[in-house]
Amino acid sequence: MPDKRFNIWTMDFDTPYEGQIHAILEFLVSHKTAFQKMDVVITHGYGKALLLDGRIQSSQKDEYIYHESLVHPVMISGERPVRVLVVGGGEGSTLREVLRYPSVEEAVMVDIDREVVEACKIHLPEFHQGAFDDPRTRVIIDDGRAYIQNSGERFDVVILDIPEPTEGGPAYALYTAEFYRLVKNVLSDGGRVVTQACTSSITMVDNFSVICNTVAEVFGSVQPYHCFIPSFGYTWGFALWSPGIDDMAALDVDVRLRKYGLPELKFYDEVTNRSLFSLPRDVRKIVSEETRVFFDENPPHI
Amino acid sequence: MPDKRFNIWTMDFDTPYEGQIHAILEFLVSHKTAFQKMDVVITHGYGKALLLDGRIQSSQKDEYIYHESLVHPVMISGERPVRVLVVGGGEGSTLREVLRYPSVEEAVMVDIDREVVEACKIHLPEFHQGAFDDPRTRVIIDDGRAYIQNSGERFDVVILDIPEPTEGGPAYALYTAEFYRLVKNVLSDGGRVVTQACTSSITMVDNFSVICNTVAEVFGSVQPYHCFIPSFGYTWGFALWSPGIDDMAALDVDVRLRKYGLPELKFYDEVTNRSLFSLPRDVRKIVSEETRVFFDENPPHI
Amino acid sequence: MPDKRFNIWTMDFDTPYEGQIHAILEFLVSHKTAFQKMDVVITHGYGKALLLDGRIQSSQKDEYIYHESLVHPVMISGERPVRVLVVGGGEGSTLREVLRYPSVEEAVMVDIDREVVEACKIHLPEFHQGAFDDPRTRVIIDDGRAYIQNSGERFDVVILDIPEPTEGGPAYALYTAEFYRLVKNVLSDGGRVVTQACTSSITMVDNFSVICNTVAEVFGSVQPYHCFIPSFGYTWGFALWSPGIDDMAALDVDVRLRKYGLPELKFYDEVTNRSLFSLPRDVRKIVSEETRVFFDENPPHI
Amino acid sequence: MPDKRFNIWTMDFDTPYEGQIHAILEFLVSHKTAFQKMDVVITHGYGKALLLDGRIQSSQKDEYIYHESLVHPVMISGERPVRVLVVGGGEGSTLREVLRYPSVEEAVMVDIDREVVEACKIHLPEFHQGAFDDPRTRVIIDDGRAYIQNSGERFDVVILDIPEPTEGGPAYALYTAEFYRLVKNVLSDGGRVVTQACTSSITMVDNFSVICNTVAEVFGSVQPYHCFIPSFGYTWGFALWSPGIDDMAALDVDVRLRKYGLPELKFYDEVTNRSLFSLPRDVRKIVSEETRVFFDENPPHI
Repeated sequence: MPDKRFNIWTMDFDTPYEGQIHAILEFLVSHKTAFQKMDVVITHGYGKALLLDGRIQSSQKDEYIYHESLVHPVMISGERPVRVLVVGGGEGSTLREVLRYPSVEEAVMVDIDREVVEACKIHLPEFHQGAFDDPRTRVIIDDGRAYIQNSGERFDVVILDIPEPTEGGPAYALYTAEFYRLVKNVLSDGGRVVTQACTSSITMVDNFSVICNTVAEVFGSVQPYHCFIPSFGYTWGFALWSPGIDDMAALDVDVRLRKYGLPELKFYDEVTNRSLFSLPRDVRKIVSEETRVFFDENPPHI
Repeated sequence: MPDKRFNIWTMDFDTPYEGQIHAILEFLVSHKTAFQKMDVVITHGYGKALLLDGRIQSSQKDEYIYHESLVHPVMISGERPVRVLVVGGGEGSTLREVLRYPSVEEAVMVDIDREVVEACKIHLPEFHQGAFDDPRTRVIIDDGRAYIQNSGERFDVVILDIPEPTEGGPAYALYTAEFYRLVKNVLSDGGRVVTQACTSSITMVDNFSVICNTVAEVFGSVQPYHCFIPSFGYTWGFALWSPGIDDMAALDVDVRLRKYGLPELKFYDEVTNRSLFSLPRDVRKIVSEETRVFFDENPPHI
Repeated sequence: MPDKRFNIWTMDFDTPYEGQIHAILEFLVSHKTAFQKMDVVITHGYGKALLLDGRIQSSQKDEYIYHESLVHPVMISGERPVRVLVVGGGEGSTLREVLRYPSVEEAVMVDIDREVVEACKIHLPEFHQGAFDDPRTRVIIDDGRAYIQNSGERFDVVILDIPEPTEGGPAYALYTAEFYRLVKNVLSDGGRVVTQACTSSITMVDNFSVICNTVAEVFGSVQPYHCFIPSFGYTWGFALWSPGIDDMAALDVDVRLRKYGLPELKFYDEVTNRSLFSLPRDVRKIVSEETRVFFDENPPHI
Repeated sequence: MPDKRFNIWTMDFDTPYEGQIHAILEFLVSHKTAFQKMDVVITHGYGKALLLDGRIQSSQKDEYIYHESLVHPVMISGERPVRVLVVGGGEGSTLREVLRYPSVEEAVMVDIDREVVEACKIHLPEFHQGAFDDPRTRVIIDDGRAYIQNSGERFDVVILDIPEPTEGGPAYALYTAEFYRLVKNVLSDGGRVVTQACTSSITMVDNFSVICNTVAEVFGSVQPYHCFIPSFGYTWGFALWSPGIDDMAALDVDVRLRKYGLPELKFYDEVTNRSLFSLPRDVRKIVSEETRVFFDENPPHI
């Protein structure tokens, strides 16, 4: 008889004909918010995990891979960052990584879904590690796009830590050229930006490819990169733009991390950075030949 | 893309190589009690459901089938019942059916797991429909076998509404000849008894068959019966003993239900009763030829 | 690690949110015919099985339940049958049961899908047991409806052993009033008919209910019945019409089986028959109150 | 209703509580050979695929990633290879990549399972692309270890393209120090070796780490590397030893590929190579600190 501990499973479908399955030990939260289906669960394989609209956003066991990869390249790709904006990032892990920089004086996090933020505060202390209580942190519950359009503030780094652009989900309007132009307006001199950019797996590379091209369309160039996230079962893509660095793959990461006052990290260092920014030939070719751009009229969706 | 509402599933395995899967909308409770894993969930297909050790115990949409089949045959198989004992029955649905009889003056329910009973009280009002608040109800949190051994009370009807005898679960000792002898001692004159008896599907008929024979061994005879429970995906067996009725299949059920003051039921009536007690030939043959008996030394397990 | 023998599974979905899963040991045939997807597999739990469009049609371990229930009630519900028509029935098991009657002189089987019939002949000898080689058997590869419309023959018994009316599948036109009128035309004096009629589970009873009413609409009355099929995970419905018998539940089945020269059967006898024709109150109510009829313009589909 | 095309699935479990699921369109072969369970299937997502003991070995859509990563680094990590030995490699894709080198005069492939090789020849022409018919190819059906022990031949490159070391499977003895010593004996002067080395995912990195250390133990050093294989849902590890190259990450791959007469490849080039040999910090740390060695007495198993 199969082990009775394994009777509840997530089935995380990437397409109608393939997916990942994970046995769940316990549900901490299972709730439909105003914006999305939210589940905070304990999995057998990955510890605690946040699911939005049925997709794992991050898991206790490997969230450091995603969050270090998202935060540190952009943070060290210019002058010491002082003011940082995080859009999304409900788990608080992105804040946690941002706050490692002694130079950071203010970290503003804008998330649309109060219930997700509150659930993460309560149930995911292993993720945020107190980041919500840091005096430099300011959490704003708002639509990220509206905030950026209206705030009038400037940031050295903008980090778009947002869910995939699911149909009907809250994030599809945060991947378009129009949105990136708004982001451009809030960048300080020397300011830079990174966004999560969907899977970079060659089998489903479309969104990654067009997001990268949309960033390039608005900012003039883009540095695509990716890392493998075990709990996703895929390599995950990011798109970075920084005015100061031409070739992120060749960056003197170890020197910079020390100079910026970072402790040793678990995943990210100079060798890791080299792998992040060295896309394999098949993916690189598709990204470099991409001509499509996401506009508000034809946003992405998965 | 598969519907994102369907990302959490129970896999209810009957054997290592087959099972039922049900998509879950929401978790109301997901918790390991002192005795078992308990999940109170909302399924897409069957509404609310109680799962113990990963197995559906009953669902909102079809629990009336199980509970009417469990309760009414034994209740009408003798004189008007006055004092009734329910062992198990955490959902309160068995109580609910028992309390339909105006003649019932006391319904004692003994369940080992306080947390299950409390969770059902709070989350499953559609099941118990206030049965826990009926003045005739007395709920005792205790081991059913210990209670029966020590109570010194007498009952007209004893209803064993207990989980399957899973390895390490709380109920395996409630299916043995020794236990049935204890039950016999608490029956009043004319008293009768019914137990849930695992699936009667010909493909997994062993426990049903031996439970029936064990009842017959202790009480002198047994009337096996069964009904189909959609959310189980199987026909479900029961074993009844009543001193007054030789052939339950021929019982004048409609007359009795009226005489005993029952309202119209959803599932059970005379024609239904005829189907319950008419086991098909293949199952009937196995049950009638069974020679094994469950003793404390070799209890059942699934 | 889960047992590596269990790496291939059928997922047989009844709705988008529930289904049965069965581990498969081996594929004997896996092929898209001109009419449907056909898989002949060996399951771990049920031995060999035929799947059409992903749904188990019958399995080695429990096909006797389905086929005895389909064939024998209609065969004994009138005079000794001489000429029998089977529509569908690719496995040959229906033929096998029909040929048990010494009175049968000709058994005509019309199946639309030559590839299914050929695959069953080769791979499912445990099912047909040589029925295709019986000199009384005549197999015709044709659309069942066209055959009935054009044959000009008369039959004492017509058995509609056809797949469920799946969208785009071959059988949806064999469940309508227009079709039943064609069937009526080929019945001999005293002729009778039975059709499989989808699940009778209260949770998905619609097709059963309307099929029964459609039979009644055309023939003047109907006797609905059902049995539990383990490999389906459901009770399965049938609709029978016979001019000679008012109440099939009360039929003297054991006497008739002997009189008609039948050997002992595994599933069907008088007690079983009583259970088949005693629908539970909830299903009975729905079927008896049904007013809808399937016509060619609004055929069923699942 | 879920799409009826998706009724057969592989469940490829990595642990008892997580796995990948893939819908299967058709089975070309499903058979237990003398050594392992073999399935040649057509998946919906990845085209044709070979499964051994329930695990995807390679798929039509992404096998080039695995096979280019396995073959080319070792081939260009020394003088132009003339004689190459492939152990395993039933699909013929490894041969195909080896035969791209004009310098290769003989490619010997030793596989233990004739039935796998024959099935791949017949059903997977998209994989081998005629490699089995190349006059330079010599296929030997034998135990790889026995062959290496007894052949007396010398090879410039040895490629161990073998299944994971599953319990009871054919390959567990091809991952031990004793075996690698035998391999060392058949290397020509300047000869080098590569082996597949299980997943490099940080969540299941043990086998990769110990295989790398076992290679280092026998050969004096090792260059671990990995790539992401979509159909596996994991990064996949390899362990390479070459006497001539200290730092594979810095290799002038593009020059070498041209010099050795290779056409443009789909996955592998200099940038890709840089990513392959740049393990992320977390994995790198574990591999570099590994002290365990696999011996015949304690071989790996998954």
